[in-house]
Amino acid sequence: MTPDFSFRLLATDGAARQGEVTTAHGVVRTPAFMPVGTQAAIKGVHLSAVRAAGADIMLGNTYHLMLRPGAERIAKLGGLHNFMRWPHPILTDSGGFQVMSLAELRKLDEKGVTFRSHIDGAMVSLTPERAVEIQNLLGSDIVMQLDECIRLPASREEIDRAMRLSLRWAERCKRAFEGAGPGRALFGIVQGGDDATLRIESARALVDIGFPGYAVGGLAVGEPQAVMLAMIEAVAPALPADKPRYLMGVGTPDDLLQSVARGIDMFDCVMPTRDGRHARAWTRFGPINVRNARHAEDPRPLDEESSCAAARDYSRAYLHHLMRADEMLGAMLLSEINLAYYQTLMQGMRAAIAESRFEEFRAVTKAGWERGDIPAIA
Amino acid sequence: MTPDFSFRLLATDGAARQGEVTTAHGVVRTPAFMPVGTQAAIKGVHLSAVRAAGADIMLGNTYHLMLRPGAERIAKLGGLHNFMRWPHPILTDSGGFQVMSLAELRKLDEKGVTFRSHIDGAMVSLTPERAVEIQNLLGSDIVMQLDECIRLPASREEIDRAMRLSLRWAERCKRAFEGAGPGRALFGIVQGGDDATLRIESARALVDIGFPGYAVGGLAVGEPQAVMLAMIEAVAPALPADKPRYLMGVGTPDDLLQSVARGIDMFDCVMPTRDGRHARAWTRFGPINVRNARHAEDPRPLDEESSCAAARDYSRAYLHHLMRADEMLGAMLLSEINLAYYQTLMQGMRAAIAESRFEEFRAVTKAGWERGDIPAIA
Repeated sequence: MTPDFSFRLLATDGAARQGEVTTAHGVVRTPAFMPVGTQAAIKGVHLSAVRAAGADIMLGNTYHLMLRPGAERIAKLGGLHNFMRWPHPILTDSGGFQVMSLAELRKLDEKGVTFRSHIDGAMVSLTPERAVEIQNLLGSDIVMQLDECIRLPASREEIDRAMRLSLRWAERCKRAFEGAGPGRALFGIVQGGDDATLRIESARALVDIGFPGYAVGGLAVGEPQAVMLAMIEAVAPALPADKPRYLMGVGTPDDLLQSVARGIDMFDCVMPTRDGRHARAWTRFGPINVRNARHAEDPRPLDEESSCAAARDYSRAYLHHLMRADEMLGAMLLSEINLAYYQTLMQGMRAAIAESRFEEFRAVTKAGWERGDIPAIA
Repeated sequence: MTPDFSFRLLATDGAARQGEVTTAHGVVRTPAFMPVGTQAAIKGVHLSAVRAAGADIMLGNTYHLMLRPGAERIAKLGGLHNFMRWPHPILTDSGGFQVMSLAELRKLDEKGVTFRSHIDGAMVSLTPERAVEIQNLLGSDIVMQLDECIRLPASREEIDRAMRLSLRWAERCKRAFEGAGPGRALFGIVQGGDDATLRIESARALVDIGFPGYAVGGLAVGEPQAVMLAMIEAVAPALPADKPRYLMGVGTPDDLLQSVARGIDMFDCVMPTRDGRHARAWTRFGPINVRNARHAEDPRPLDEESSCAAARDYSRAYLHHLMRADEMLGAMLLSEINLAYYQTLMQGMRAAIAESRFEEFRAVTKAGWERGDIPAIA
């Protein structure tokens, strides 16, 4: 029998929380990092490796999937889980963020947004109701409301307008999601730009509407990390403790550590795979660019203690060569190494919170990053 | 203790041969197909999957590796096996073919060939002695002589000249290879274009020099399959039965089947991975282009009887989507599917020869290809 969607808060340590989200397709241990499978695939990584790295859940992008291959087609093929052969939980965004960042010729009004597809130039319309319908067709475990995500900096007036529109769309999404199958949930999205007052107002209004989970959207869009963390600090107390909190599109390992410290439970970001394709490896000792000439003859692995065989078995010299030679395998290995590092970091945070030593974990982790990589002996 | 290099002929069926080549890094079951790892990587496929598909040996390209990362650098890093983490047999070509096809500003004389690198424009010189030295630095189990490979069609005079130059280079390579470590071997290369008389003369002269294995080079360079097969039929009887025979750079599954029928033991080709990157899958029922619109909603796997999980588990619709969306995973999965099909074909041939039913195997295999793919029910 499909379980009901639920969140259990298992431990707290300061503002940091450890828990688990139960969905129709399984349990998500939180704090959780969701690898991004924009077009129903994680770029360059087999899903078996994504799973082996420790991912409980992945994210799909509604904008991309609605345009290609199309939500109705995926539904006909048994839904997104079956289509991509990922039987574990999936969260999909609403498409709103990509409409803002990728589509051309947008027209936004109360009803929704109309845009020109970046793939074939067709005019496409997305309303709150259609965003939910698409995500229902995909069969996502966690569905996101349609919101308007604006770039920062923006005027207070503009931020206020977009935040209130997003609230009205949240209500419409909730109505559209009524009657969805068991084990699935719709999350509301807090907006309000870099204005703490508007953020708190948005959070409270969403809580009044009532959702099984809340996201913080519209951050990591160019503002300094301190602004992002200040917004989280403002919003978190306004959200119910017994519901999961998802910070959308974030971020660097340090962003994750700082945000968990402020009460965030879920994250997604393209960074591990995008950086992997651009030769940047994330490790216990901070980022390492393997294209750098100093790695050309370095026989050491990236990290002999990594949970990922690729980080332990291959020399830096080999990874360097693969990236210089533009071999697909280089991007594949580094993406896998990065996904594994992110999952190891999440696992470390979960264990630390459960054992009431999150501050120590944070200090040790940051000390490792600050130590930096040790060059080979010349 | 490192075993001596050897070839055991275990069974014959007509002209087809089944056997095994023993090298310093293990045994190669023949007929064998060698996946091509041009730049110390198989494009888009983890070596664990290459091995799992059934590959006993892979090929590296001397031309690419000498230019980047450089043979001396690979030697310093423990040799090619260690560099790429492939502890099994490796054959390297001599670089001659790629000098002809990729490099600019070639100057060829008795001494060797000088060319401009296609990577950084540097002038590089390759002699028979240097070709062997590079392959020794790489640590290849099977080293190929430097030869001059010309394009067809060519005049008889030109073919004759290149064939005789290749013979003189064969002798120089043999001298240069003397004293190489145990378990390793240098193969001579039969040239002679599409002229059977010259081919036979080349083969006999090489046998007089004496090599532990013989390759047939300069084919599959644009001539019809019938010409290629005629050349093999002419050359094979001139080669000793107790030495392996390697047809370089070949080919389609049908090329392999027809060439094994004529006494060839080893092959290499980029086709499985190159075709995979271009959406072409090789199956029991011939090639299938998954980009074709007819696959867009086809829930069937490519081949439910494949030895490769990717061919059994994913729908054609999903593979179609991945290739249309230009997702790396599409190229990765199809390359793996193709490598697995090639290895399954070789395994089928080996078993059939051992059981004296090669002609039946050939007929059944060809009937499958000719049947072709069955479209989904509309």
